[in-house]
Amino acid sequence: MPVFLNASDADFDQAFATLLGAKREDSPDVDAVVADIIADVRTRGDAALIELTAKFDRLPLTADQLRISDAEIDAAIEDVSVEERAALELAVERIRAYHVRQMPQNAEWQDDAGASLGWRWSAVSAAGLYVPGGLASYPSSVLMNAVPAKVAGVERLAVVVPTPDGQINPLVLLAARLSGVDEIYRVGGAQAVAALAYGTETIAPVDKITGPGNAFVAAAKRRVFGKVGIDMIAGPSEILVIADKDNDPDWIALDLLSQAEHDESAQSILITDDEAFGRSVADAVEARLQTLDRSAIAGPSWRDYGAVIVVPDLDVAAQLSNRIAPEHLELCVADARALSEKTIHAGAIFLGPYTPEAIGDYIGGPNHVLPTARSARFSSGLSVMDFLKRTTLSEMTPEALRAIGPAAETLAKSESLEAHGLSIRARLDRLNR
Amino acid sequence: MPVFLNASDADFDQAFATLLGAKREDSPDVDAVVADIIADVRTRGDAALIELTAKFDRLPLTADQLRISDAEIDAAIEDVSVEERAALELAVERIRAYHVRQMPQNAEWQDDAGASLGWRWSAVSAAGLYVPGGLASYPSSVLMNAVPAKVAGVERLAVVVPTPDGQINPLVLLAARLSGVDEIYRVGGAQAVAALAYGTETIAPVDKITGPGNAFVAAAKRRVFGKVGIDMIAGPSEILVIADKDNDPDWIALDLLSQAEHDESAQSILITDDEAFGRSVADAVEARLQTLDRSAIAGPSWRDYGAVIVVPDLDVAAQLSNRIAPEHLELCVADARALSEKTIHAGAIFLGPYTPEAIGDYIGGPNHVLPTARSARFSSGLSVMDFLKRTTLSEMTPEALRAIGPAAETLAKSESLEAHGLSIRARLDRLNR
Repeated sequence: MPVFLNASDADFDQAFATLLGAKREDSPDVDAVVADIIADVRTRGDAALIELTAKFDRLPLTADQLRISDAEIDAAIEDVSVEERAALELAVERIRAYHVRQMPQNAEWQDDAGASLGWRWSAVSAAGLYVPGGLASYPSSVLMNAVPAKVAGVERLAVVVPTPDGQINPLVLLAARLSGVDEIYRVGGAQAVAALAYGTETIAPVDKITGPGNAFVAAAKRRVFGKVGIDMIAGPSEILVIADKDNDPDWIALDLLSQAEHDESAQSILITDDEAFGRSVADAVEARLQTLDRSAIAGPSWRDYGAVIVVPDLDVAAQLSNRIAPEHLELCVADARALSEKTIHAGAIFLGPYTPEAIGDYIGGPNHVLPTARSARFSSGLSVMDFLKRTTLSEMTPEALRAIGPAAETLAKSESLEAHGLSIRARLDRLNR
Repeated sequence: MPVFLNASDADFDQAFATLLGAKREDSPDVDAVVADIIADVRTRGDAALIELTAKFDRLPLTADQLRISDAEIDAAIEDVSVEERAALELAVERIRAYHVRQMPQNAEWQDDAGASLGWRWSAVSAAGLYVPGGLASYPSSVLMNAVPAKVAGVERLAVVVPTPDGQINPLVLLAARLSGVDEIYRVGGAQAVAALAYGTETIAPVDKITGPGNAFVAAAKRRVFGKVGIDMIAGPSEILVIADKDNDPDWIALDLLSQAEHDESAQSILITDDEAFGRSVADAVEARLQTLDRSAIAGPSWRDYGAVIVVPDLDVAAQLSNRIAPEHLELCVADARALSEKTIHAGAIFLGPYTPEAIGDYIGGPNHVLPTARSARFSSGLSVMDFLKRTTLSEMTPEALRAIGPAAETLAKSESLEAHGLSIRARLDRLNR
């Protein structure tokens, strides 16, 4: 059984703080190994990539085999069923439709002083997407990264994916093709991240790298950050469900388990205003765990990090939710929309009984790459903004410079930055002549 | 003399690559010291802050002196001249007016399947702003960080600023007050960053930390990243000026020097389509260096990292500019606006002869915290977005779940995530009963 808390208990604050502070991930320190791999790829390029791929993926390659050819992709995706293809196509369409609406507007205006001010958005020129190999090689993850990049206008989008023993998931290749990926390379690990950041003879460098990966990939992304942009380093997945008694305990149990089955470090929490309902859900989880394929993963996750919290009312639920700042938040209460106005720190909110979180993992439209480990307090999920940057624009007329230049000169002097002041003064002197 | 390159020369590509690759900063490795300081503040709170402040700032304090009181602020800002106060007030007003326009909109819509989708923006609850002490204690920097935070809606904004030997710049206090800062603490260094991230008895923890600082502060920000959000770690400042011959060489020289005077590691580059003009600007820089207060800083910066590049035409200038991806880009050419459409990788663009970059440092309106070291290829300057986060919203109706649920179930199965699929199937089965 997971921890069962009652917000009215005297020791609740302490127990809740312990729950919040639980360290669920124990990443091995692979930084030194990763530093060596990156240095090797920077120095020897393709030769290092080939050697490391032979070593880690047991896959001997020549330089011209690093890239997966169009013919290979064509052949592989023939294995995809009609049903799976249709599902991926619907997902691409819906994710694209959502992300198109995120595109920000350029702006330019003239203010009272006569200054023209504004900004302009532009896409990152080239982006790289890391796709894990093996069990965690999820086509949905390809879509969630690649579609926003292409909607943003990224011209060149390269995927790297390890293919241990030459194995590749055809759905990953189809997802890449459907979302407009330009290049796919059969390399992975820190060496693939290094290749994207610094380039090799075969792989041109990119400006931004996104996508999930293991501890080596995460360490490599941290190391190349600055040389290129990276997305967040995601921690184990989490869900918080706030549900009242008018829900089917089995539905809520399945929603909790759909996080728990990701990873033994995942965390599923239920907050309810009805203790008996909470117990019913816990029972339903145990029942489902008897038969679930991945109960060896979901079981430990639920027992070690799961929690049921009983609250006196939904206002307390909202307060606790904001302290948890969950990655995924499901609101299964009579007035979910009203409650959502109060739960402001969350990556994604799923409203009402017919919106299981799994819909958002695949096909709802919003992105499934979301802030974990309480970082929804200060960060957002992946979006087109991650593939765009803003350039600010300013243009002074002589009148505008006359109006505001002297104040800038005053401030420059106060900061002892003489040339700053002189660059304004020289122009004002000419204008005042 | 700085390096003088001609884009038509045979060895230009090599020389340009060398210029781009020049390592201008050699940060000391202070990570171990910083780790100890952070651990100390986490463990001992105020006691550690007080001890470290006595040691590094030679300032003995009691816990209730950590915060600068309103009365102390009132007294200090009486020393600010009327002219300086008016300049700061104008700057606040203009920076606020610009950043108010950046506020993004919430969205919600219903799609063809009947799903309600959207997103909602909300402010970070609490933010901390690091302000350096001593020479680099710039009031303009307070405004550029604090105004966007308050425009975004940050409820609690805390400033930390070291006051070595008790010295504080009254303009910094006035800038903080004018921009709505809620709390000011007289602590600095890694210990101040640790206090903001983890909290002490006196300083409540924040969710996001921004602001410039020395190598210790930068290392501390890197270390607390994840626990809290941070802004970018800024490198030395840079300017690229693209100017044709119809400019006053002295104005351009002063613009180049207004970056060079910041730091010996700053970089100022001129690209021009007229070699004689380039030589005139270089001469004008030398002439100004004879008398400039900070020539001991600006001189080495210009000689070591400055460059004049002659190009055959402005299209080549735009291409080189995109490879440099400058923090500041001044376009002093006949049709600056047309050229700006081609220079897409830049933090801030200043158009025309009456827009010296120094205007943007203080009073133009756009933010002066901008991406350095070529990171304008993938990142943007500070904005209200740095103090906001987006929560995505999804709500399925029974009809919407019937329409798109099966595709999600198919994809869940293809990823072997059974509970994901079951959470949808259980609902569909009920609906289909």
